[in-house]
Amino acid sequence: MDHLILHEDPRSGNCYKIRLTAALLDLAVERRFYDIMQGETRTPEFLAEVNSNGRIPVLQVGDRFLPESNAACWYLAEGSTLIPEDRFDRADMLRWMFFEQYNHEPNVATLRFWLAFVGEAHLSEQQRAQIPGKRSAGEDALALMDAHLAGREWFVGEACSLADIALYAYTHVAEASGFRLRDYGNVCAWLDRVAKLPGYVPMD
Amino acid sequence: MDHLILHEDPRSGNCYKIRLTAALLDLAVERRFYDIMQGETRTPEFLAEVNSNGRIPVLQVGDRFLPESNAACWYLAEGSTLIPEDRFDRADMLRWMFFEQYNHEPNVATLRFWLAFVGEAHLSEQQRAQIPGKRSAGEDALALMDAHLAGREWFVGEACSLADIALYAYTHVAEASGFRLRDYGNVCAWLDRVAKLPGYVPMD
Repeated sequence: MDHLILHEDPRSGNCYKIRLTAALLDLAVERRFYDIMQGETRTPEFLAEVNSNGRIPVLQVGDRFLPESNAACWYLAEGSTLIPEDRFDRADMLRWMFFEQYNHEPNVATLRFWLAFVGEAHLSEQQRAQIPGKRSAGEDALALMDAHLAGREWFVGEACSLADIALYAYTHVAEASGFRLRDYGNVCAWLDRVAKLPGYVPMD
Repeated sequence: MDHLILHEDPRSGNCYKIRLTAALLDLAVERRFYDIMQGETRTPEFLAEVNSNGRIPVLQVGDRFLPESNAACWYLAEGSTLIPEDRFDRADMLRWMFFEQYNHEPNVATLRFWLAFVGEAHLSEQQRAQIPGKRSAGEDALALMDAHLAGREWFVGEACSLADIALYAYTHVAEASGFRLRDYGNVCAWLDRVAKLPGYVPMD
């Protein structure tokens, strides 16, 4: 595989997903750090060279750049046990990864960013008005995950896949978003299973 | 392949993606219709049997159910030319599909739903307050697509892939969301290319 560089802010769960995937697969990844609070991913250089969308993470593969956390995890994991062999299960894994980006991350991750990093006092009026909606949608996502995990160890099939890694990233720090993880018993047991995987690395 | 049933509302671009993918691949898909405006995807039966997330589309494969439009497209297209053979390109295709669900759909599709189906007069105060932000983010997404398409025919590699289909669905009807497509010349030329693909079917 070409030399891998992860352009990241270590506080970001989306960046952590890639680092965790690489660690579980024992892949070496060089890390380049950016401070999103300081706008370091919106500089003209970053937009021109790394990602015109102004976002991290970006996985650099040789001289090519791959934005979007779940796409980068896919790139690293192809051919490994983190992607199911069964055709339906493979699509079902992607289903949970799209769920994560649509129903989970914009609520659970955004509230963490707003409340734990920006600070409620510094939010705009419009951001503040969105908190109840994001709280409710985040609770719905966690409840749906909890119901799915009843009687199951992993999100898809019988083994850990990228679906688990994608959903783990912001779920395991969801207390910082103001969610009460103890309300979701199956989720808590699953979080423990992920943290015990061989090669697991914690968020910085 | 098992018998395929698409649980859909034909006004939804997310549903159309799957129908277009199946058409381009010449796959037969039975259609089951639901009216999302009448809450037909939130009934106890739908939540228990089809999708506990209360959303369409859902692709039924035999007796298994696959939510999330882009995951369903992936299921249908595996092994076809709609998924690139090159490993980086395959991940890069997923990158655009995640971009679509994170940066494009929540802005371009939501504005279409609010303005063309619900009607601005029936929006809540909180929804109305989000219009300028979604307008601006939708314009950013279209501008980023337009810049990427400069000198390119397709989003990834040299042929149409699921990235094009995913992004086509809500882009080609973005005038209904209040966006001016003529401002994005490369996007307009690309929309024409998609509409000329052999097997193409229009949105209902």
